[in-house]
Amino acid sequence: MAVEYYDFGPHKIHHSSVFHTTDISFAFVNLRPAVQGHVLVCPKRKVKRVADLTDVETIDLWRIAKKLGRQLESFHKASSLTFCIQDGPQAGQTVPHVHIHILPRKSGDYENNDDIYDDINEKEKELHQALAVDNERKDRSIEVMAIEADEYRKFLF
Amino acid sequence: MAVEYYDFGPHKIHHSSVFHTTDISFAFVNLRPAVQGHVLVCPKRKVKRVADLTDVETIDLWRIAKKLGRQLESFHKASSLTFCIQDGPQAGQTVPHVHIHILPRKSGDYENNDDIYDDINEKEKELHQALAVDNERKDRSIEVMAIEADEYRKFLF
Repeated sequence: MAVEYYDFGPHKIHHSSVFHTTDISFAFVNLRPAVQGHVLVCPKRKVKRVADLTDVETIDLWRIAKKLGRQLESFHKASSLTFCIQDGPQAGQTVPHVHIHILPRKSGDYENNDDIYDDINEKEKELHQALAVDNERKDRSIEVMAIEADEYRKFLF
Repeated sequence: MAVEYYDFGPHKIHHSSVFHTTDISFAFVNLRPAVQGHVLVCPKRKVKRVADLTDVETIDLWRIAKKLGRQLESFHKASSLTFCIQDGPQAGQTVPHVHIHILPRKSGDYENNDDIYDDINEKEKELHQALAVDNERKDRSIEVMAIEADEYRKFLF
């Protein structure tokens, strides 16, 4: 059954940004990507912390993340992946809903390899603010995001 | 059956640093922790990339990581957790053997929340060099690490 919006903490993610779903999880393109192909994987149930996930949710999320990571790496001609969960506010989590960051990595994509984490953090803050405000000028348009999600729907999974 | 050393890529981890094992995985204290309680969870099989993990390995690793994260957070009186996999050299992986970093996080542990990632990267480089060289002065002694591992063996799981 088609869903118009997916819950992401207190926010709504439009279905056109969601490119893969299971009964338990959904994967969506990022309003504020740190690198090309930076996506998020999330349980459908609003679960704040990793410790609150059921085993079934944990397995489903990581099964998707593993497959998706490999496909995104190939799709974006990358050679590595960063997987990251900011689990709780003191770890940089801004949206209180568990989500795995997946980022395809390339040689030289950042001058210092670990500068990407500054960006993950910064983009996560911006994402939360942008979703909350919804009129931020720097946001990617829903159309641009839909095009990316559409490509992933076609070429991945 | 007692094992003297565990394989971690080309390196050997002494059993006294390993505080939890299953048939499939092992968890060990870090030679170069970025914060107190920074540990690593690893499949016993030498698997380079996340995409090479079997489903059974993926499930086992994250079942441990989830439980261990909660326990470490409580043990170290932290309030959040950073989970991170540097999957491939362009993502900062120095030891070609999949490992999940788990780091208990506290308010103010880093001036900038994301500076921890600089440290994860830096410590991962140092870990690899130190394990390779094995005579690095800054290393924690095997005794100090054994004490920490022993505490976890007693109080966690």
